[in-house]
Amino acid sequence: MKLGGYKNRILRVNLSNYTYSIEPLNEKMILDFIGGRGFAIKILYDELRPGIDPMSEQNKLIFVAGPLAGTNAQSFGRWKVFFKSPLTGTYFKSSGGGYLAAEMKFAGFDIIIIEGVSDKPVYLWIHDGKCEFRDASYLMGLDCDDTHTLIREELGDPRIRIACIGPAGENKVKISGIFSDRRAAARGGGGAVMGSKNLKAIAIRGHEKVEIADPEGFSEAVKAQIQMYKSNPAFEGFKARGTQIAEFTNLLGMFPTKNFREGVIQGWENIEGEEFDKYRVRKTGCHSCMLHCGNLSKVNYGKYKGAWSEGPEYESIWAFTGTISLPDVGLTIALDKLCDDLGLDTISTGSSIGFAYELYEKGIISKDDTGGLELVYGNDEPLVKLIKQIAYREGFGDILADGTREAAKKIGKGAEKYAIQVKGLELPAYDPRGAKSHGLNLLTSNIGADHNSGYAPQEIFNVPIPRPVDRFAVEGKGEITKFNQDLTAFLETGILCSFPPSMGMINAEVYGKLVSTITGIKDFDDPEYIWLVGERIYNLERIFNVREGFGKKDDSFPSRLISEPLPSGPASGQVFEQDDLLKDYYKVRGWDLETGVPTKDKLKQLGLDFALEYGK
Amino acid sequence: MKLGGYKNRILRVNLSNYTYSIEPLNEKMILDFIGGRGFAIKILYDELRPGIDPMSEQNKLIFVAGPLAGTNAQSFGRWKVFFKSPLTGTYFKSSGGGYLAAEMKFAGFDIIIIEGVSDKPVYLWIHDGKCEFRDASYLMGLDCDDTHTLIREELGDPRIRIACIGPAGENKVKISGIFSDRRAAARGGGGAVMGSKNLKAIAIRGHEKVEIADPEGFSEAVKAQIQMYKSNPAFEGFKARGTQIAEFTNLLGMFPTKNFREGVIQGWENIEGEEFDKYRVRKTGCHSCMLHCGNLSKVNYGKYKGAWSEGPEYESIWAFTGTISLPDVGLTIALDKLCDDLGLDTISTGSSIGFAYELYEKGIISKDDTGGLELVYGNDEPLVKLIKQIAYREGFGDILADGTREAAKKIGKGAEKYAIQVKGLELPAYDPRGAKSHGLNLLTSNIGADHNSGYAPQEIFNVPIPRPVDRFAVEGKGEITKFNQDLTAFLETGILCSFPPSMGMINAEVYGKLVSTITGIKDFDDPEYIWLVGERIYNLERIFNVREGFGKKDDSFPSRLISEPLPSGPASGQVFEQDDLLKDYYKVRGWDLETGVPTKDKLKQLGLDFALEYGK
Repeated sequence: MKLGGYKNRILRVNLSNYTYSIEPLNEKMILDFIGGRGFAIKILYDELRPGIDPMSEQNKLIFVAGPLAGTNAQSFGRWKVFFKSPLTGTYFKSSGGGYLAAEMKFAGFDIIIIEGVSDKPVYLWIHDGKCEFRDASYLMGLDCDDTHTLIREELGDPRIRIACIGPAGENKVKISGIFSDRRAAARGGGGAVMGSKNLKAIAIRGHEKVEIADPEGFSEAVKAQIQMYKSNPAFEGFKARGTQIAEFTNLLGMFPTKNFREGVIQGWENIEGEEFDKYRVRKTGCHSCMLHCGNLSKVNYGKYKGAWSEGPEYESIWAFTGTISLPDVGLTIALDKLCDDLGLDTISTGSSIGFAYELYEKGIISKDDTGGLELVYGNDEPLVKLIKQIAYREGFGDILADGTREAAKKIGKGAEKYAIQVKGLELPAYDPRGAKSHGLNLLTSNIGADHNSGYAPQEIFNVPIPRPVDRFAVEGKGEITKFNQDLTAFLETGILCSFPPSMGMINAEVYGKLVSTITGIKDFDDPEYIWLVGERIYNLERIFNVREGFGKKDDSFPSRLISEPLPSGPASGQVFEQDDLLKDYYKVRGWDLETGVPTKDKLKQLGLDFALEYGK
Repeated sequence: MKLGGYKNRILRVNLSNYTYSIEPLNEKMILDFIGGRGFAIKILYDELRPGIDPMSEQNKLIFVAGPLAGTNAQSFGRWKVFFKSPLTGTYFKSSGGGYLAAEMKFAGFDIIIIEGVSDKPVYLWIHDGKCEFRDASYLMGLDCDDTHTLIREELGDPRIRIACIGPAGENKVKISGIFSDRRAAARGGGGAVMGSKNLKAIAIRGHEKVEIADPEGFSEAVKAQIQMYKSNPAFEGFKARGTQIAEFTNLLGMFPTKNFREGVIQGWENIEGEEFDKYRVRKTGCHSCMLHCGNLSKVNYGKYKGAWSEGPEYESIWAFTGTISLPDVGLTIALDKLCDDLGLDTISTGSSIGFAYELYEKGIISKDDTGGLELVYGNDEPLVKLIKQIAYREGFGDILADGTREAAKKIGKGAEKYAIQVKGLELPAYDPRGAKSHGLNLLTSNIGADHNSGYAPQEIFNVPIPRPVDRFAVEGKGEITKFNQDLTAFLETGILCSFPPSMGMINAEVYGKLVSTITGIKDFDDPEYIWLVGERIYNLERIFNVREGFGKKDDSFPSRLISEPLPSGPASGQVFEQDDLLKDYYKVRGWDLETGVPTKDKLKQLGLDFALEYGK
């Protein structure tokens, strides 16, 4: 039987000499890694020499669409981009929604590998199995929306899908992302990598179909998936508001406020779901997803009147409120759009700003450093200017443009302790002290403090799978964290969005049916097997990082989260018990307790024999 | 034979009660007025009660596509919008390019008449013969580009064509226009009329074809038109640069500088065609037009680095250079886009700014009036702020937002003499003293100082049709002006763009062939008849204005142009001999010499018996 799902084509582009080739997928890679995130780590592990500079021509940028993208299976419209991160130095995966992944498949490709560096600004025009290198000089300096518009006009087709960088990526800002129709693969500095390659955008359009190996079985599987969505108690609420629900973490006392000093923002009612209802213009969504969780928001009064955004998501809401202690919806909408235009990651941008506000309060920096900006809690005046300075690497923004870890090094004077990051990636809007598995995931995720690598719905939404948990408990959190991380890893072979699993809307059985019927590979129908693939992916990523020199020493929070109890609110008194939690996690993972490195036995068990030399 | 060209449908929309009807065209109107501008003045004359307030619900907004729009005849992609102008109080026609007119035809309509006032912000969704009223609350305050994007996203079709207003139109700024894909029907305050109706946009999409009565004859006519284009000596140059050629009027000494005090800008070489070549990204064009005269421009260095615009056209180049005496290409690109975003007419905006700069120099206004802005020649610092103030009616901008005539009244202190306008419409970038027929047209145009109502290529480009002329001569200019005005009037029944006739690229014979073969109406093949229609249209517009109280007293330039000779340059010493020129013009027109009103005899001769009561 012919394989379905895959287009069986990798587009490999070399920007240094403006050539490209088309390669088939490797059969063993398909069987061992299913697709998406699995393919990407295998390729990066095989092809990226250890120790390379992420901003050099040795780095690669790998855009991946999963086998289920472009079909009527639900929520598989995610595209992922993989690279060695200039922000963290680790392997990195970053993910965006919208329509790009489906269009990649329609254009005939599962994977686009971008190598080398162009000596002039270019963009790629990828259409129906072909690739053109096109001059992008005129696009340089343009914001992401304008870049979309002008490329579509140049190529004469408004239905073209685009992924591009904004001025921030061009300026190699390490907290810049890659944007497609206002949806972003924001984290980890993918924008800077793309900028370092002189690649302003990729434009994609195609007319192929995605073949389905077993149409009848697939149709049944999609029905089962939809049924599972609809019967989930969170379904209707999530459809209505998406992630515009800042109350949920405030009610748990883990909404990071004033640079993670507090867990509740004063006046959180001003940014709760009902408030955002007043600003919502309409719902928006991604290719083939009934959740339709996006929001088009518009400000009709007050200081930010006229501002609009596709968003803001929960994380972006937090990024401009919790950080400066000012719960204002209009502010979040205006700055979310500003970051989308400039091509910045809202989480790291907001977090860097929160870091700067605390340094200002502590007297570590002053007006002399900020060029006159008064970074005082509750004062939003400096933000538009400061965010532009970050994107254009001007003034004080140039320091924040490399993220908090590097900024702290440059600033000195003890600033390091206020950089709230793991492995260089700024923490998102969940205080690890309020949910220990959540924290453990942030601590151990292969890309730094990423909430989506192993989101713990057990702690946040009381999802009782595999069992109910106490969010403050230490015991058993290694197992829960591994469960969530491995689950996410195999779901991201599809590539599934991270929202359905974060509410318990999918499981290995349904996923296995989808991926086995579309591909025609029976092994994938075995839940045990796909759990194994998830763990395999997770461990190979870890090994990639081990090869780069990462280990237990890097699985560490800043001291605040370990030794300063949350001062008030529903999580009052909690700290993050790092040592105990980490030991438990390594044990469950089968990793060496002293170094955090996977054992050779574990690698063998996962079929990662080719990586044995880096095991313990 | 069935008529071709026309869709034979008028869409009549009433915003006051959210209803619409569809009416056929009137047969006599077709025969008497051919289409486009002809239809519009007949409808406005019949339907607009004299003396109405242009900003009231009595005013109507009439969008018109000509019988040749949507076909492969060249340069007929113009849409026109007609109304009583809040800036001038006269009948008004304003015109935009792009793809809107063709789409109107594809959607099934020749004419869209918009009546009444909506009690909430709406936009119209006109598709395939139907019309929907849709909520536009969320679009209010958005710039024109964003409005296009969000409507297309809402309706799920990126190929929809849109005409909308920006913040300036919403704020009823009288120098605001209506914008479609960055092409504008900019002049006369159509934006304010649309804003007063609470109509943010019309969105159009259709799939009908335009029927051709005599396909073979039409094909021949189009070939003849193309041949006439190609054989014109200006064709290649115009294709290459469009109107980005500010040198041509500087070399004639009639590039208005410092509010029409001088006719040459110092350093004009900095804004000549070759300079703009360095900023051009690509050529752009309108539906079915081989001239493709548009320019996408981008600034890659200097103060305005990163700015881009579709344009600027010659007039916009002048509007931000001659007015403040600073020839800077980057400046023109940045401000052209700013006006496109905000929805402002660049000519009147620039002219109002030039007016303010002179008042500032003369001490009539000071920093106290401008809120600290230093309006000193050569200083472009205040412009971005001032233009935003105009669009949002803030600070000093609120005064300029009504155009120079009203602004001068408010300011007093003799400011009136510095308002360079006719009938309230600011003069474009041609000093009337340097080309007398050009001036005579500006003086007598039915919409105020509009260069496109009777552009004199005889004077500017030495086009020897109907005969060569001396641009400084007074004698014979009445005849030349009538020739150009009537020619323009019948060409705008099509609706032809104003550029081909401004270079002598079309004549009545070719036009007659096009319009007769598409419609199937043989009378239109008679050049004498279509010249008569041109004169008929022109006179009916004049009568509309007479009915509103306009006459000879309003055909008057500010004293500077009449009594201050140009101080230097190739047109040094020239004044505009208003009395002699006007008398000659009225005589040629067959209008009463004392009042400037068409005689009853003239009206009868033109078949305008229904308007006899207003004749002299």
